[in-house]
Amino acid sequence: MRTPAQNARLALLLEVAGTPKPGNVDRRRDLADLRFEHFLAGTVGAETGLEMAQHGDQVGDAFERAIEGMAAQGGGNTQFGALLLLVPLVRTAADHDRLSPSVVESVAEGTTVADAAGFYRAFDHVDVFVDDPPADMEPLDVRRGSEAVPAIEKRELTLLEVMDRSVPGDDVAREWVTGFERSFAAADQLVEAEGPATDRAASIFLSLLAERPDTLVTNRHSQEVAREVSDRAASLVERDALETDPDAVESFADDLIEHGINPGTTADVTAAGLYIALERGELEI
Amino acid sequence: MRTPAQNARLALLLEVAGTPKPGNVDRRRDLADLRFEHFLAGTVGAETGLEMAQHGDQVGDAFERAIEGMAAQGGGNTQFGALLLLVPLVRTAADHDRLSPSVVESVAEGTTVADAAGFYRAFDHVDVFVDDPPADMEPLDVRRGSEAVPAIEKRELTLLEVMDRSVPGDDVAREWVTGFERSFAAADQLVEAEGPATDRAASIFLSLLAERPDTLVTNRHSQEVAREVSDRAASLVERDALETDPDAVESFADDLIEHGINPGTTADVTAAGLYIALERGELEI
Repeated sequence: MRTPAQNARLALLLEVAGTPKPGNVDRRRDLADLRFEHFLAGTVGAETGLEMAQHGDQVGDAFERAIEGMAAQGGGNTQFGALLLLVPLVRTAADHDRLSPSVVESVAEGTTVADAAGFYRAFDHVDVFVDDPPADMEPLDVRRGSEAVPAIEKRELTLLEVMDRSVPGDDVAREWVTGFERSFAAADQLVEAEGPATDRAASIFLSLLAERPDTLVTNRHSQEVAREVSDRAASLVERDALETDPDAVESFADDLIEHGINPGTTADVTAAGLYIALERGELEI
Repeated sequence: MRTPAQNARLALLLEVAGTPKPGNVDRRRDLADLRFEHFLAGTVGAETGLEMAQHGDQVGDAFERAIEGMAAQGGGNTQFGALLLLVPLVRTAADHDRLSPSVVESVAEGTTVADAAGFYRAFDHVDVFVDDPPADMEPLDVRRGSEAVPAIEKRELTLLEVMDRSVPGDDVAREWVTGFERSFAAADQLVEAEGPATDRAASIFLSLLAERPDTLVTNRHSQEVAREVSDRAASLVERDALETDPDAVESFADDLIEHGINPGTTADVTAAGLYIALERGELEI
């Protein structure tokens, strides 16, 4: 019987092992400076923060600790977005018999200004790709890390309010304000799918990518690029290419890697979906 | 800064991710009923037992708990032998500044009859491939699991003495009686090698396989088969095939999988070597 924090570790591992996950590090692909082994070390590094979430620590403190540990490897940011979803889910699972959108929403609504401060401090530990904020939001730029905490405290923003201000433009934050809508839908799809968990993870990743343009791709490249990638994923999903034409998915994956296009937000939601399915006991390994 | 138990988790993950590791599950290969994801779940399952070893529990109790957790996945025995090496190494690392053969030897020598009982109880949790014992050893057949504990207690055998009786024929037990000789040598080679840790793991696996016939292959197939596999590995090592002719190593890997030949003991020693290198801070990820 795995604990909530242990299921979170397993979700991170299954996510990165799923292949093909076009554009991302997976069981078959490394990026130039970001390799599979960095995700393994990132998972082990996140352990203490995930344990804190399970044992009742505040979401912000647990998240900061998870990121500090995750970042203690040479690849840089491996699982920042995934942990921003997993930490509140673990916190919720520890106190509730069954994960549901409403109980996760209540945990999100219970976050405080101190949690927001923890979230900002987490940026001190790792470089995360974030777009420039509007001019009036500059004092709250997450890239300022702990230096932005006084501005957060002055405006009395909770972590949920910080997430709310990041939507649209960040589909990890969007999960926070929608009761983790896509994460729960992904969990249901994972349970309905067939085959090894890592194959299911790859299939759900492609469906999520087809459903909405990846916001990390939008921020790093452009809306047009993100839309094109999503459309291409949709046409592969439509003809069930993972089953009927796996080479087409592999060549999509190779193309994205070649162009440095990395749908990281979609991977984050995949990890959250894996977690919910594992935690509910509906996905057996 | 990872703890000893965390380094053990990372060593298990890096070992299974190393590819090609001919005959074994690796980042690119699954066996029919034993998949990469089972090793991921096995690693997470082993957490509690590894924590016990770190926090001063007896080696036998920690080992039994690690195996119970490791076995809580659908693939069966994933990391029994690796944990039989990692548990005493973690126990040692928790109490000593630096891992060395002599301090590991002293921990092995300090094991008791109760530790031997824990080792036997571990067999209740999982099917491990073991050859028939000689007739006079039948009461001590490990496959009897906890039922053999009274016989162990009557003969007052410590865990080290049980290991000693398994040599020759089991190169995991051999590590216990030689101060973890090959594990330490593998660690040194891992540190001297270059490139990603998973590539180093693959290279050290092949060298270990070339050095001695794998005892799991001997027990499951025959001495001749184990010798042939080892000789073939030696000829690949001799011409540095991982660098000069990687296809030859890949086709060796495919052959072994096809014939159901799985050099599991060599993988166990590779994991122990990775652990020592990580714990000494000499292998960075």
